[in-house]
Amino acid sequence: MTDDRDRATVAIVGAGLIGAAWAALFAHHGFAVRLWDPQAGALDRAAEALPRLSAQLSEISAARGGPGDVRRCDTLPQAVSGAVLIQESAPEDVPLKHALLAEIETAMVPEAIIASSTSALTWSELAPGLADPARLITAHPFNPPHLVPLVELFGSDPARVDAAEALYRAAGRVPVRLRKDATGHIANRLASALWREAVHMVQEGIADVEAIDAALVNGPGLRWSVLGAHMAYHLGGGPQGMAGYLDHLGPSQERRWASLGTPSLTPEVQAALIDGVAREAEGRSIAELEAARDAALIALLRARTSGA
Amino acid sequence: MTDDRDRATVAIVGAGLIGAAWAALFAHHGFAVRLWDPQAGALDRAAEALPRLSAQLSEISAARGGPGDVRRCDTLPQAVSGAVLIQESAPEDVPLKHALLAEIETAMVPEAIIASSTSALTWSELAPGLADPARLITAHPFNPPHLVPLVELFGSDPARVDAAEALYRAAGRVPVRLRKDATGHIANRLASALWREAVHMVQEGIADVEAIDAALVNGPGLRWSVLGAHMAYHLGGGPQGMAGYLDHLGPSQERRWASLGTPSLTPEVQAALIDGVAREAEGRSIAELEAARDAALIALLRARTSGA
Repeated sequence: MTDDRDRATVAIVGAGLIGAAWAALFAHHGFAVRLWDPQAGALDRAAEALPRLSAQLSEISAARGGPGDVRRCDTLPQAVSGAVLIQESAPEDVPLKHALLAEIETAMVPEAIIASSTSALTWSELAPGLADPARLITAHPFNPPHLVPLVELFGSDPARVDAAEALYRAAGRVPVRLRKDATGHIANRLASALWREAVHMVQEGIADVEAIDAALVNGPGLRWSVLGAHMAYHLGGGPQGMAGYLDHLGPSQERRWASLGTPSLTPEVQAALIDGVAREAEGRSIAELEAARDAALIALLRARTSGA
Repeated sequence: MTDDRDRATVAIVGAGLIGAAWAALFAHHGFAVRLWDPQAGALDRAAEALPRLSAQLSEISAARGGPGDVRRCDTLPQAVSGAVLIQESAPEDVPLKHALLAEIETAMVPEAIIASSTSALTWSELAPGLADPARLITAHPFNPPHLVPLVELFGSDPARVDAAEALYRAAGRVPVRLRKDATGHIANRLASALWREAVHMVQEGIADVEAIDAALVNGPGLRWSVLGAHMAYHLGGGPQGMAGYLDHLGPSQERRWASLGTPSLTPEVQAALIDGVAREAEGRSIAELEAARDAALIALLRARTSGA
């Protein structure tokens, strides 16, 4: 634990899985963290989780702080009063978030940033909760938030989005900005589009759940961890890059788009999905699968930072 | 170079980028490789590329062979006569492939497997080229084929698909089987579905090309290199896994699917894509971008094999 006076303070409001991950992350990267939740039980569970989350982070990069730098707060004003960034990670409920944002606003330093971790809601849905909506940005992490570097940002005040971007970079994140507020931000729109076709293939009997997952992990998923979708087509276009790709293969892409499916989550499809992941899990529990996922992510992130 | 008598022989028919990658891969994994192309120039370029491809493979796993195990053949019958697997990697042209398949069929061992690398065509389109279509499978690799482990298999003869699966595993691949013949196999259908939404976001001004690629590489792409799309929702469903996910969030997925876009590759959208990848490339040539991609893939594959 180091002295708070030289360090920026981040308040984490909501100490569930996402909040605990944020707390571990900011502490690891040298921030002073204040953690608050209306439920004492949530704070207990977060305190219990922090050492494990911090240990995972230490496998990827040198620790500039740790669980000792996360201060548990009894009241919301205590948590947010000195913070430059207030990371709101409360349940996905509009009235609840509006009430919470209003309470944060009365206690915060006026020029601080409130960043909502919301996945399902948009900035436009949350902004009415504030007297000054410019104070709010959405800053959506991708699960598990302490390991996956992406944070998707949107806000109405470019200066605050700039400042937030710098803070997330200092916490080892890769912030990405939206130009327009959109449900699902960028990443969950992409994930949803991909999963729609994955479910369609299950529904049509083209491939089993576990075959589709194996294809993704050993094919496009692997490549997308290195190269974006647009850039992949640029490299697939020959010497002319994207222009060559669009000339030669644009029409066939449009035909393929037209052939993609629009499945429904009927009882039969749901049963096929549930049975499929059960076969794929091969008896491993959710906790075991998560541990395997985290270990694999850590190995990849280490490979990245070692100069890939 | 080792003696051919104890090793299975693979014939590579077509010595373009895909064929050269197959040749390097099978040689690296201890197969005797025979390479043929109607154009001598293609064989020259493949011979020139092999040492670099083999060196990349040696960074990932121990070499059981190398460029010296690739024998250049002057005629198609010379290449295919003793092969257990004939990997056809000719241009994506149905009449050309039909003629080639017929020629292979007259020269091959009857119980051998002809595996087409075709990306754009289906098994059903190619099968009429053969007297005995059971001899044909599609075996689609993902670019760059010597590095990305996925091979997608479809054929009408389960015994031959089994045998092919074993051969690809012996070559360090991850074979995945389709249950039904489908354009785009699995991986390119997923890639096409994802890219449709990526292009839609560019068209709608939600995010820039380079922001979308950065979000993918640092978010879902990274996670999909470890965890399939179905399994990710299983882990997102709480203690009940996929069943819990479908109960709680299935309806919101269906709403999100309905909100995804169906863009057109209009001149404006094409210009935005071309400008976007140019900004993202930051002046790097296609060759430089490919080298960076390969280096990153090799680092990740090394991290995987070291027990991730």
